[in-house]
Amino acid sequence: MPDRSDPEGAVAEAARKYSNWGRWGPDDVLGTVNFLDAAKRRTAAGLVRLGVSFSLAQRFDMDGPQRGWRRRTNPVHTMLDTGMEAARGDQGFPHGLGGADDVVSMPLQCSTQWDGLGHIFDHGRAWNGRDAAEVVTSAGDLVTGIEHMAAPVAGRGVLLDVGRVLGEEGELPDGFAVTAAHLEAAASAHGVAVGRGDIVCVRTGQLTRARREGWGDYAGGPAPGLSFTTAGWLHSSEIAAVATDTWGFEVRPNEFDHAFQPLHQVAIPHIGLLIGEMWDLDALAAHCAADGVHEFFLTAAPIPFTGAVGSPVNPVAVK
Amino acid sequence: MPDRSDPEGAVAEAARKYSNWGRWGPDDVLGTVNFLDAAKRRTAAGLVRLGVSFSLAQRFDMDGPQRGWRRRTNPVHTMLDTGMEAARGDQGFPHGLGGADDVVSMPLQCSTQWDGLGHIFDHGRAWNGRDAAEVVTSAGDLVTGIEHMAAPVAGRGVLLDVGRVLGEEGELPDGFAVTAAHLEAAASAHGVAVGRGDIVCVRTGQLTRARREGWGDYAGGPAPGLSFTTAGWLHSSEIAAVATDTWGFEVRPNEFDHAFQPLHQVAIPHIGLLIGEMWDLDALAAHCAADGVHEFFLTAAPIPFTGAVGSPVNPVAVK
Amino acid sequence: MPDRSDPEGAVAEAARKYSNWGRWGPDDVLGTVNFLDAAKRRTAAGLVRLGVSFSLAQRFDMDGPQRGWRRRTNPVHTMLDTGMEAARGDQGFPHGLGGADDVVSMPLQCSTQWDGLGHIFDHGRAWNGRDAAEVVTSAGDLVTGIEHMAAPVAGRGVLLDVGRVLGEEGELPDGFAVTAAHLEAAASAHGVAVGRGDIVCVRTGQLTRARREGWGDYAGGPAPGLSFTTAGWLHSSEIAAVATDTWGFEVRPNEFDHAFQPLHQVAIPHIGLLIGEMWDLDALAAHCAADGVHEFFLTAAPIPFTGAVGSPVNPVAVK
Amino acid sequence: MPDRSDPEGAVAEAARKYSNWGRWGPDDVLGTVNFLDAAKRRTAAGLVRLGVSFSLAQRFDMDGPQRGWRRRTNPVHTMLDTGMEAARGDQGFPHGLGGADDVVSMPLQCSTQWDGLGHIFDHGRAWNGRDAAEVVTSAGDLVTGIEHMAAPVAGRGVLLDVGRVLGEEGELPDGFAVTAAHLEAAASAHGVAVGRGDIVCVRTGQLTRARREGWGDYAGGPAPGLSFTTAGWLHSSEIAAVATDTWGFEVRPNEFDHAFQPLHQVAIPHIGLLIGEMWDLDALAAHCAADGVHEFFLTAAPIPFTGAVGSPVNPVAVK
Repeated sequence: MPDRSDPEGAVAEAARKYSNWGRWGPDDVLGTVNFLDAAKRRTAAGLVRLGVSFSLAQRFDMDGPQRGWRRRTNPVHTMLDTGMEAARGDQGFPHGLGGADDVVSMPLQCSTQWDGLGHIFDHGRAWNGRDAAEVVTSAGDLVTGIEHMAAPVAGRGVLLDVGRVLGEEGELPDGFAVTAAHLEAAASAHGVAVGRGDIVCVRTGQLTRARREGWGDYAGGPAPGLSFTTAGWLHSSEIAAVATDTWGFEVRPNEFDHAFQPLHQVAIPHIGLLIGEMWDLDALAAHCAADGVHEFFLTAAPIPFTGAVGSPVNPVAVK
Repeated sequence: MPDRSDPEGAVAEAARKYSNWGRWGPDDVLGTVNFLDAAKRRTAAGLVRLGVSFSLAQRFDMDGPQRGWRRRTNPVHTMLDTGMEAARGDQGFPHGLGGADDVVSMPLQCSTQWDGLGHIFDHGRAWNGRDAAEVVTSAGDLVTGIEHMAAPVAGRGVLLDVGRVLGEEGELPDGFAVTAAHLEAAASAHGVAVGRGDIVCVRTGQLTRARREGWGDYAGGPAPGLSFTTAGWLHSSEIAAVATDTWGFEVRPNEFDHAFQPLHQVAIPHIGLLIGEMWDLDALAAHCAADGVHEFFLTAAPIPFTGAVGSPVNPVAVK
Repeated sequence: MPDRSDPEGAVAEAARKYSNWGRWGPDDVLGTVNFLDAAKRRTAAGLVRLGVSFSLAQRFDMDGPQRGWRRRTNPVHTMLDTGMEAARGDQGFPHGLGGADDVVSMPLQCSTQWDGLGHIFDHGRAWNGRDAAEVVTSAGDLVTGIEHMAAPVAGRGVLLDVGRVLGEEGELPDGFAVTAAHLEAAASAHGVAVGRGDIVCVRTGQLTRARREGWGDYAGGPAPGLSFTTAGWLHSSEIAAVATDTWGFEVRPNEFDHAFQPLHQVAIPHIGLLIGEMWDLDALAAHCAADGVHEFFLTAAPIPFTGAVGSPVNPVAVK
Repeated sequence: MPDRSDPEGAVAEAARKYSNWGRWGPDDVLGTVNFLDAAKRRTAAGLVRLGVSFSLAQRFDMDGPQRGWRRRTNPVHTMLDTGMEAARGDQGFPHGLGGADDVVSMPLQCSTQWDGLGHIFDHGRAWNGRDAAEVVTSAGDLVTGIEHMAAPVAGRGVLLDVGRVLGEEGELPDGFAVTAAHLEAAASAHGVAVGRGDIVCVRTGQLTRARREGWGDYAGGPAPGLSFTTAGWLHSSEIAAVATDTWGFEVRPNEFDHAFQPLHQVAIPHIGLLIGEMWDLDALAAHCAADGVHEFFLTAAPIPFTGAVGSPVNPVAVK
């Protein structure tokens, strides 16, 4: 474990060890999603044995965890027309047609989401070594916008239900730092191996707890999550993406005296890793626990907002 | 072809002939998506032979077709933080961490989308015979909200490239009414059969034209699209969903003297059909034309906005 | 004081006694603002003796009291362009021009505001006896939209600083019901008389407290405010409008066993009273306390959103 | 008239001649609004002789001029609750209470507005010589946000109805450059003198035309407006603010071969002038034409969005 008093040094060391800068050329916009190639995707489709599908998205509405930190609210969904006007026939349409329509205002990272490669920077550097100021302006991410991830994110998903394997009643406590050893123990318990190009879903059980007890500080407060020390595993495993059922994917409080999301600072700009947050893994996890199969075909396509640094997503797992 | 002067009568007759009300019980919220069961989904996964994936979504940004009709705008995407502040180090984060974050305001049906079952009514009746006024209020669709479609929409996709088969240079002219015979001709030309539970993607080529010539009246103006007379085919084929590369899926001007989207009025509230609009089928279609394979595994999961009557979607086809 | 167990009866009785339905004809859209005529406005201008101006608006930003109740958030203000891009010269403008631009998403009643006449109903009846369902649909308030208040709301303002007159250290405790006698006592202490057409600003001191202690439950929690029993005073005084420094203008908890804003239910649909909430009266009140003058020229023009049932407002008092 | 081929030189020269940098100290955030002091405001109140009030705001709704340029849309106003649910009694409130509530998403400069001092920069310099990159970031205008203008903008308004004085049927043609001589001619025709601290409202008649003929290119297209050569008059007259009935206050096409809003580039960052746009002066102008009085008490208080570079405003003139 690195020196608690020196997050900056720890980040720098991890960045040096685990950087993927240049690995896919100077123009790369996909990062570790490059690991998820056609061959991996084809093999993954072979995992579909039952045809059962699971949505790994939370519902998007005002009953979400956001509390306004840095202007992040829950989605505000409103109607432009409703069935009430339709039933009264005063919408101006002919021959009995009626309609309802709606709008939403929302932060792109308010609920189940992908962090885009332009979401986090290290000392002003974005993914692949680019100048953050050149990459993300008020016009959005001009280089690595989430739209580039529109097609490829479909492949093998692996559930590592660390909450079930290591927790009490299926849940890890807040502040529990999930290490590479814990991840391997879960994989081993499940009888599954994580490999190149996989989309790894780590269930801590925190969302289960929030669902039972209320959101509380789910958004930004203490949480179980990946230890800073998993940076090496995230790099060497050559996974395409990782996602958790927590707000911020890494353990909170962070494992340094004064820090804020240091693993993000390594994983996104240096490893080029696609990170999913606030995924709802509970229904899938229950099924996996029941049948013992923890791998599946997973499609998790972001909505291609041009220049976005993140996106809501409804990941669908098919077993 | 029905009497041009009597859309109301034509709708009523089609509704009577093709209604699925009650077919899946009084509490149904899925409509024709019920046809897409686990067995169909399992078989569909077997269509993945190459592992190549295609996004069927347009990009979501201000450069879209909307012009404000009924308060429908293009998405307005803005940044909460950018790489410029991160590069200057004035975001208030420790140890060199920087971040970018963003928000969006958008109609849920402004770009590539699904129409939910609460989107269209016939004489105040919603899907399954419900009272539209009881189903969709200012609080949203209380019964058939798009969140119910979060998990199941993954299965066999079939591309019917009517534009390529019947059009000139791959495009049907505006006002071209695609009939069941045209659909069958396309299927026959492709050597593919449409069946129960399929998600049928009909390419007219209009989006290709709009991309070349500018949006013009793409949103609501003249367009190729399904003929009102396809209602029977949409019903008897037992497809799970249909999607087109046009604003409104059915031909415009509509095939009656004074009408507005009469096929919607049959398809959504009576057939219970899931309808996709503004899909971008061009890249997929080019690939299908090249390799002659027009079927694929398609995941088209809506973002589960609670109570929404439609949703943006990034459909991903894997061949 | 009415029977605590029967708010419905109390509302009905007050409605019967204090109704202004029909007073200004069947087509009226202004309610008590009719009392503020040109003669009153002319006289009010004569109150300007110093030329000093005060804004009575809170600042509009995420640091506001809203917590998402019924989808009410604080304003989300984001930039379309900033000085950072301008300084870099990459905005695409010629000859060294640079610009910044911004957008906002907000509930119209999230901060300093007017309640429009279409904001509250009594048993489905809106102001002047109209059917609420005919007045406010998903298209907005078709009859009494706030745009009708665009011009007239400028006239004599009177500050009743009940907090200073009756409270400790200038603040009334939460739950303190301000009665007509309290209002008269404040007026008497100030040496001012409230009359026809006035815009009465009632300071309780709760905002002062919230500014010092944090918002807490300012939005919807316990608060000092007008007693239900002031309905008669609000009616007989023939004031044009009333505004407070609290979320909801009337005392909370409401003065019945099970109730929600019963004074609103009388004041808006029956009296036709324009009600202001979340006004910031502190700077003005300090000045009035110092010079002993509690009347002023007040302009409080809503932004004329067509069909809105409320509006943000920046009231400006000139003494 | 300056050299048409050298807008940059013309801007530089005007900036040198008419700069107010430092005039009100290094920390100034009000610019020319400093001219509008208490004495001026007190005198202005004396202009109220009739008590008649006029709103100078357009209505805010989707039927506005915006077309999406640089993500500027018209306001999207939607309802959270309506009278329809209230009439049905299914809102969850007790004792017959019903309510309607609404939200809006809008650019702050989509309709009747003030340009804040952080809206325009010259070669990366903001008002008072500050670095634009230090002033306006993604967090908004950190120095000269529109909230600083919340209280003072109430004073003497003067209407210069150039359209009526010099135009045909009250309207100047598009492209008509209003010079200082034209402004003086209008003032002379009205029998009014413009002086220090005034808020000058210049009516061109373009909005009248747009109202009659449709918006067309009102937002950004050809328009009558102030000539670049008025920079000296805007400076030497020591007015507090100027507003027009056009999209951009200055004449369009701009008076240089290749230019974009060069007068803004002088007026905002160098003169520190508060500029109003898209004001609706027609009703006021008709009254002034009828009674011959072109001066009035004008309150034009922006909504104090923290850090905004502009604001919607409902200016109220009282004669």
